Amino acid sequence: MTLNNSGIDLDSGHSCSKMAFSWAKKSFKNRSGFPGEVALEIDGAFCNIMKFGETLIGMTSDGIGTKAEIAERTGDHSTLGYDLIAMVADDLIANGVVPANITNILDVDVLDHAIVESLMKGLYEAANFSKVSVTGGEIAELGARISGWGSSMHFNWCATAIGYVPKGRKPISASNAKEGDVVIAFKSRGFRSNGFSMARKILSGAFGENWHSENFSKNVTWGKALLTPSLIYSPCITKILESDIRVSGIAHITGGGVPDNLGRILKYKALGAELDNLFEPHDFMKKTQELGNVSDEKAYRLWNMGTGMLIVAPADSSGEILKIAEICGYIAQVCGRVTSVPGVRIKSKAISSDDLLYTRSGK
Amino acid sequence: MTLNNSGIDLDSGHSCSKMAFSWAKKSFKNRSGFPGEVALEIDGAFCNIMKFGETLIGMTSDGIGTKAEIAERTGDHSTLGYDLIAMVADDLIANGVVPANITNILDVDVLDHAIVESLMKGLYEAANFSKVSVTGGEIAELGARISGWGSSMHFNWCATAIGYVPKGRKPISASNAKEGDVVIAFKSRGFRSNGFSMARKILSGAFGENWHSENFSKNVTWGKALLTPSLIYSPCITKILESDIRVSGIAHITGGGVPDNLGRILKYKALGAELDNLFEPHDFMKKTQELGNVSDEKAYRLWNMGTGMLIVAPADSSGEILKIAEICGYIAQVCGRVTSVPGVRIKSKAISSDDLLYTRSGK
Repeated sequence: MTLNNSGIDLDSGHSCSKMAFSWAKKSFKNRSGFPGEVALEIDGAFCNIMKFGETLIGMTSDGIGTKAEIAERTGDHSTLGYDLIAMVADDLIANGVVPANITNILDVDVLDHAIVESLMKGLYEAANFSKVSVTGGEIAELGARISGWGSSMHFNWCATAIGYVPKGRKPISASNAKEGDVVIAFKSRGFRSNGFSMARKILSGAFGENWHSENFSKNVTWGKALLTPSLIYSPCITKILESDIRVSGIAHITGGGVPDNLGRILKYKALGAELDNLFEPHDFMKKTQELGNVSDEKAYRLWNMGTGMLIVAPADSSGEILKIAEICGYIAQVCGRVTSVPGVRIKSKAISSDDLLYTRSGK
Repeated sequence: MTLNNSGIDLDSGHSCSKMAFSWAKKSFKNRSGFPGEVALEIDGAFCNIMKFGETLIGMTSDGIGTKAEIAERTGDHSTLGYDLIAMVADDLIANGVVPANITNILDVDVLDHAIVESLMKGLYEAANFSKVSVTGGEIAELGARISGWGSSMHFNWCATAIGYVPKGRKPISASNAKEGDVVIAFKSRGFRSNGFSMARKILSGAFGENWHSENFSKNVTWGKALLTPSLIYSPCITKILESDIRVSGIAHITGGGVPDNLGRILKYKALGAELDNLFEPHDFMKKTQELGNVSDEKAYRLWNMGTGMLIVAPADSSGEILKIAEICGYIAQVCGRVTSVPGVRIKSKAISSDDLLYTRSGK
């Protein structure tokens, strides 16, 4: 049993996910030759893509995990909708699927109308930002099955997004990646929805039970810093894909960080990458790492460390990609290149400036 | 505040759902004129239907609610997959959408590999039964945010299903229903996934904390009786819709029971129904009602009372519908007819044989 120090059993998580996926995969035959047939099994997929006649529909599900607790602690529920849509919309666009519709399920212990409204208004705003519509929702009152911090309404929140592969285009997989491709990093705003179990453990160890009220900087509490809403990349990536720029692969940086999520799209062609120009981790992220005595190597797997999305593309595409990113208001930069040697090499921008080498994907 | 005696605040539930839907509806404009546009707003819809080119895709989300506790109590997790797929696949087919793919999200406190495998194997079996494929899944370890009965793994389980309206067909709404149409009832097997908060409250009041171990009959414990897996109707209804038989409307009997779910598809044309031949409630359902001193009128809103699905159809369609149901191995019978007088009239098959009249939908 490999604990990641936050109490989450990583080995068990991986083996359960693998087992669940093997049962799911056996069920693919049920749609073989019918609408809803799995269109292609993509190397390092972030979603599944199904064929309905000529239409390719992608689908993925995820939740905001224990980031919900940060809203309970700060009393601010208005921005979690951005986190929820980011998790699913950015998984779709990573495979070239343009997000269109989402449904959400809100599990609560008891209902608080004002809190539910704050969540739903935030979801609406994030839907506007990402050009999706919310076409389904369920609020389940589950009483004591749901718990959390403090005495206000406790909740868990998850969503499913669907989208489409534009006519005449193909899904994005890593099958076109090749040595010499550049890797372009998109800056994140904060923790997004990953690595909260560890961050919370470190901060409560450092500041005690009410760590969220402690100041991180003059005007920002730790609670507010951790709540920083996710930037949703899908509107910008959609524009890039619409512009006929060649893209070899896209990695959404979720659990496992840059090494595992870039690794998962490169490993099938036994390629690697050298990343010497990633963004700096956010100050509050680096401070959390310091407080927890977390090594740089581990930190890059636990958290996004400043980079929320990576695009792999032929070198001559990078200028156009960066131009569109800038027009859309996103901060992006070339951060490295694809190598023929497997493994992801990162020049740390965290506490040290060590060269970190990741040869085995945690996924 | 109207409590339903199980501690669930019905008024608050309805007002939160309404509010959430009003925010969701505002977001529909984000896909206006683009793929993923809401294709039509159906009267009394059980799902949403979106247009991707010529393809109509339906989507819906739901969970098994507190039925999860019955698996925790009995230690049998093998059949909940049927309950999970029933909730979403039967909501799709109620609007003429053939279910094709589902994703599921399993929230757990800590992982138990054997229990997760039992759930996923059951989901696979239910997917085979209902001819869908499981094309996505997420297992979230949420620690103390998830709770339940006993000391084994606690969990909440929800799913999203998508499907398609077959080429050349239209979604099913109630807009074709008319006076004189027959109503055909499909027999249920048990509680499906609705009304468990009240059933559990009654049974723990009657038998104490370990009510699930008490015998309901010689060989069946109360736990086993309540766990009875849902019958999934979508394979049979799909066959009926494929056979070009005219169908005026379909009601999936979930929360709100027969009166609210039939009511929601009839109210837009200000029609009503007289149901004098519904199925008998299951013995364990009737016994639960007796133990809780629940009136027949209330019981028909809390539970399905023996009927899991209703089809409204022109009288001359009923013979063919019943024939296909029989061939598919489902038990169905004509249970009443559509009237020009609004309201749903039910001749009770529960404790009394009273005539019950429902004039106001709870939805």
